[in-house]
Amino acid sequence: MAGNSYGQLFRITTFGESHGGGVGVVVDGCPANLEISENDIQKELNRRKPGQSGITTSRKESDTIHILSGVFEGKTTGTPISLLVYNEDFHSSDYDNLKDVYRPGHADYTYDVKYGMRDFRGGGRASARETLARVAAGAIAKKYLKEKYGMEFLSYVEKVGDIDSSVDLNTITSEQIEANIVRCPDKNAAEKMIALIESVRNDGDSIGGVIRGVIRNVPAGLGEPVFDKIPADLAKAMMSINAAKGFEIGSGFAGTRLHGSEHNDEFYIATDGKIRTKTNNAGGTLGGITTGENIYFRVAFKPVSTIMKKQRSVNKDKKAVEFTAKGRHDPCVLPRVVPIVDAMSAITILDHILRNKAYLK
Amino acid sequence: MAGNSYGQLFRITTFGESHGGGVGVVVDGCPANLEISENDIQKELNRRKPGQSGITTSRKESDTIHILSGVFEGKTTGTPISLLVYNEDFHSSDYDNLKDVYRPGHADYTYDVKYGMRDFRGGGRASARETLARVAAGAIAKKYLKEKYGMEFLSYVEKVGDIDSSVDLNTITSEQIEANIVRCPDKNAAEKMIALIESVRNDGDSIGGVIRGVIRNVPAGLGEPVFDKIPADLAKAMMSINAAKGFEIGSGFAGTRLHGSEHNDEFYIATDGKIRTKTNNAGGTLGGITTGENIYFRVAFKPVSTIMKKQRSVNKDKKAVEFTAKGRHDPCVLPRVVPIVDAMSAITILDHILRNKAYLK
Amino acid sequence: MAGNSYGQLFRITTFGESHGGGVGVVVDGCPANLEISENDIQKELNRRKPGQSGITTSRKESDTIHILSGVFEGKTTGTPISLLVYNEDFHSSDYDNLKDVYRPGHADYTYDVKYGMRDFRGGGRASARETLARVAAGAIAKKYLKEKYGMEFLSYVEKVGDIDSSVDLNTITSEQIEANIVRCPDKNAAEKMIALIESVRNDGDSIGGVIRGVIRNVPAGLGEPVFDKIPADLAKAMMSINAAKGFEIGSGFAGTRLHGSEHNDEFYIATDGKIRTKTNNAGGTLGGITTGENIYFRVAFKPVSTIMKKQRSVNKDKKAVEFTAKGRHDPCVLPRVVPIVDAMSAITILDHILRNKAYLK
Amino acid sequence: MAGNSYGQLFRITTFGESHGGGVGVVVDGCPANLEISENDIQKELNRRKPGQSGITTSRKESDTIHILSGVFEGKTTGTPISLLVYNEDFHSSDYDNLKDVYRPGHADYTYDVKYGMRDFRGGGRASARETLARVAAGAIAKKYLKEKYGMEFLSYVEKVGDIDSSVDLNTITSEQIEANIVRCPDKNAAEKMIALIESVRNDGDSIGGVIRGVIRNVPAGLGEPVFDKIPADLAKAMMSINAAKGFEIGSGFAGTRLHGSEHNDEFYIATDGKIRTKTNNAGGTLGGITTGENIYFRVAFKPVSTIMKKQRSVNKDKKAVEFTAKGRHDPCVLPRVVPIVDAMSAITILDHILRNKAYLK
Repeated sequence: MAGNSYGQLFRITTFGESHGGGVGVVVDGCPANLEISENDIQKELNRRKPGQSGITTSRKESDTIHILSGVFEGKTTGTPISLLVYNEDFHSSDYDNLKDVYRPGHADYTYDVKYGMRDFRGGGRASARETLARVAAGAIAKKYLKEKYGMEFLSYVEKVGDIDSSVDLNTITSEQIEANIVRCPDKNAAEKMIALIESVRNDGDSIGGVIRGVIRNVPAGLGEPVFDKIPADLAKAMMSINAAKGFEIGSGFAGTRLHGSEHNDEFYIATDGKIRTKTNNAGGTLGGITTGENIYFRVAFKPVSTIMKKQRSVNKDKKAVEFTAKGRHDPCVLPRVVPIVDAMSAITILDHILRNKAYLK
Repeated sequence: MAGNSYGQLFRITTFGESHGGGVGVVVDGCPANLEISENDIQKELNRRKPGQSGITTSRKESDTIHILSGVFEGKTTGTPISLLVYNEDFHSSDYDNLKDVYRPGHADYTYDVKYGMRDFRGGGRASARETLARVAAGAIAKKYLKEKYGMEFLSYVEKVGDIDSSVDLNTITSEQIEANIVRCPDKNAAEKMIALIESVRNDGDSIGGVIRGVIRNVPAGLGEPVFDKIPADLAKAMMSINAAKGFEIGSGFAGTRLHGSEHNDEFYIATDGKIRTKTNNAGGTLGGITTGENIYFRVAFKPVSTIMKKQRSVNKDKKAVEFTAKGRHDPCVLPRVVPIVDAMSAITILDHILRNKAYLK
Repeated sequence: MAGNSYGQLFRITTFGESHGGGVGVVVDGCPANLEISENDIQKELNRRKPGQSGITTSRKESDTIHILSGVFEGKTTGTPISLLVYNEDFHSSDYDNLKDVYRPGHADYTYDVKYGMRDFRGGGRASARETLARVAAGAIAKKYLKEKYGMEFLSYVEKVGDIDSSVDLNTITSEQIEANIVRCPDKNAAEKMIALIESVRNDGDSIGGVIRGVIRNVPAGLGEPVFDKIPADLAKAMMSINAAKGFEIGSGFAGTRLHGSEHNDEFYIATDGKIRTKTNNAGGTLGGITTGENIYFRVAFKPVSTIMKKQRSVNKDKKAVEFTAKGRHDPCVLPRVVPIVDAMSAITILDHILRNKAYLK
Repeated sequence: MAGNSYGQLFRITTFGESHGGGVGVVVDGCPANLEISENDIQKELNRRKPGQSGITTSRKESDTIHILSGVFEGKTTGTPISLLVYNEDFHSSDYDNLKDVYRPGHADYTYDVKYGMRDFRGGGRASARETLARVAAGAIAKKYLKEKYGMEFLSYVEKVGDIDSSVDLNTITSEQIEANIVRCPDKNAAEKMIALIESVRNDGDSIGGVIRGVIRNVPAGLGEPVFDKIPADLAKAMMSINAAKGFEIGSGFAGTRLHGSEHNDEFYIATDGKIRTKTNNAGGTLGGITTGENIYFRVAFKPVSTIMKKQRSVNKDKKAVEFTAKGRHDPCVLPRVVPIVDAMSAITILDHILRNKAYLK
């Protein structure tokens, strides 16, 4: 109810702030007997961690994961898995000059209104550091879905600012995505994106972009009709990520310009006898339920709010102020958001796998 | 869990199919002492009902609402409000020729995969008729929010196909929206939209479009951080509506091309002493919590799947088929979706009002 | 959140008051393809309905069930099943003299405090009439569990006042329970109970008693550890029934006087190779999870609060009053509670069947 | 869904096993601005911890609490509070001889059936060690309710085996409860209880008992009608505690023998103008909603399953075995359960305080 849990049957509850003891997650509802190690989780966390490349923040944190419960002799037991990363590298003093300022684009003002106070260090609970807990939980979901269903989660950076990419969603691999620091499998576009991010950073500014989400080998029949449609739950999952401003699935906004006769995906019988669709404007679901075609979607992320330029705002005492942020920040959050999108996708799909299974014969 | 409920503290559970006894909703968690009548609800239902104008389906259904419980001497009692519309105008025979066909763009195939059977009459539970239950419940939420907070819900049709409109979100009124049958307050655009819809219908085809959602006079501090952010919950609410393919809030996808220095909304102290922002790229929330600025968002709807043209598909027995839909259908669903978007907005916001209130001092 | 729903995956939401349009329930999460008819449900409702015998209220209501949705061609579709009984036999005037009185033992005062108003007719939402919705939903759960698992729900009246019964839980049948109007399979005890109830009624008074709950053929492994233990969920289910004051499972309160060496149920290998326990002090669960042994428990019900004697109380205006109830009331609620206990048992167990299934390999 | 969370608006999620990294809890939904320190929590944990007196297990664990998040400058921030106790004093080898044995009265067999495996060390997740997480969370709830409402939670040991006590519920204090190691404020009874527990331990056996729960200064109007009645939610809370076998509120099972004219609590106007009842057979609620009178209830706990006597059972391979438990165990769990009952009471009541507040004007 207070918004720190996600999922119904595979349910995660995250906790922790940017500064303080640590950031973690309790995963409740992971089926028993899945082999899982800290290393399986660490690999995904490393894709998200700060300081991983020249185009992210230069802040260095090891983000080392600890499994505190729920795993016995290398396997999940069916009981809650708690995962914890201790905080380190405190530069609380970076925030001292800002503790009373309502930074534009940040949650400072809204948290103060809501709670009558806030932990101002590093954004407190509103910090993107919270998302490491999602990536940790998502690593478990990804592993389960890979092993039991051969599912793959292949998000990548599709756009940075105006720079677009061209990628074949049917053949893309995770190696291609990880082949460069911006996580765009179109090599030419990736180079331009990196150059743009570097230029933006040199200006002390930031830039937004679009992540393409791709989920492959999804069983048909997942999703609940009416409110808990797969597109609805994916939309919620994605829009809950810091800085997300838009979500579309399949043909999305562009599809609104089509006629029904163009948009409808024709069914046919594939050579393996399966029912397939010739096109996939739907993006992998009909009536909110998966068709078995790949799910693909796009998520818009605004430019990072923290910039190194002087800005005007107001403070807690309702005085006008001018300020310049200190510290080390990402000029573009997109490359580090890729594993978060994958994690939220995997958590959402695994939750629906379990829900669907409950009602099967 | 089976997906037919929405909301936490103001919680609706809808039931009913296109054909059968009726369609209804149980509203659990409406505060006591709100004056409400069947007429208050009927007004909203009339905005959604079929046959209301020359550009919707010509199917005529009165969609008369009945309050079965939860209201005593004209006021809500705090107990569940059940609302029911009996089904009428059965043309089940319209569907006889299609009962084994998996219509492209429809949920026929996915329901069969999921449940091993389906009520094929009029789409059964996947029918847009389900949304009348949402509009009925939303009418209660809208009335509550209007009376207690002066809130207004002012969705309208922003685009049909390629025809865009130009509207001042700050001055728009519900009268302007209701002034024409397409529910676009830009009169010139409305005329073109109507002409386009008529032309599409004459072709036996359909067309999509975009709804703009506007919520005015929202208190600051609503929304829960992390997962249950207002943008996340609105996204889910909107993407759960039949035919929705995309959602964006504030600057949305377009905002991804901006720099942080352009996108950040500068805070200032208004003449009434309130903290305001000069621009509203955020769309009314920061860190997922309302700022007090208007909430605005856009929702993409694909073209209606049922068209009057011959289509190819497969049937239950995995045979290729050709078919042409019968019956009376909307060539463009947008004008009738406006009240659904308002309803889902109001339900979402009232739910968060109650959630926020629970934690206040 | 407002307390009108029960269950997670098999979830019921009840609505309706003693007077008004009707009383009903939405059942969300019933698996598809279960054959169900209004007759299946009516049979259970008839066990609960008023006027069924000489020891219940003489109020006559047919309590005719209507299936409004979720069933197609005689089978459940997996979508919400809505069930409705219209209200009839209104004697609202019976309550006119009491509308401002806070009747002792009733919810009049607490509803007024909570909601600032109440529907005073027949107890409104606090009326035991609400439980017909549970019985209707429970009839579906019972049928499912009988067909898929051979489970039996065999609650009966164990005590009325001081009159106790002696019954063999392992051989009891539903025919024995239904063989007399008090629903106690011990014939001698039943006669004494009937005589006691008649005598109490002649005094214008009421009397309490104890229901024994019995569930047979329960699969092992149901229930979730920690909070959602089967005993915890059954306790909640039973204590949510009007007039319930106590719950115990297995050895219950009496077992607290035993030593561990007496109480522990010894495991052995049965002739069919199954792991069984020689005794069943546990009542069918260990660590909150079913062992496969029968579940048995007891529920205490206080004497009905409405009596035909003059009572002292206060009214809404905080004045002392004397009053005598009018109308037709049960002198002992136990015989009509039996199907409610069965219904709540079946709903609880089916919910856990689905939950357990979700996590299985 | 997997049973490790409790509460709706004040929601706790516990994690951790007897052995492994630690045991902890995430508290989601604590209002902001409550002063809380590790010391506040430690005080309650010390009432539960092993080795605290001569009649508990001699196992020594410091059970030191760590606040990892959700508290800033000594105050709650409204974000999730995570509390962790690291495990220590591992005697895993105590369990080696039992790892394949299904101990009578324990969850060994049912966990194996449910999950296909189990962490056999110290009972794993089924260990009573899990309850320290509840006590930690409950300490926060207790402090909030004490400060804002003056509420007091005064559970005590009412019976051990056949030894009953006599206590005035209206004047009892926490000092009286803590005045002896068995936590029974009736000094004479306490001495006999201690002697009984010592005698039972010397026999290598165990004994059960009854806890009396008392909640004072409860506001009227708490609880939701129908399913989430206060008695129903307290019953669930209590029956979820390890070894609980029964729950009754107010007159409970004894009240079933009364007539309505004896049982009904007469309303009157107290000298302070408040509406009160002369008796309190109801135990503080009517129609499931609090009256403002004290809540009192009783919880039955079976004798501890682990005894030092030789027992017969079966093992994983379905072979008959004889075994004797090793290690240090409580001969009677009651004295250490008192703070758990208080914790679950406080969590339940605070949850309902928040729920009630959500719907108020």
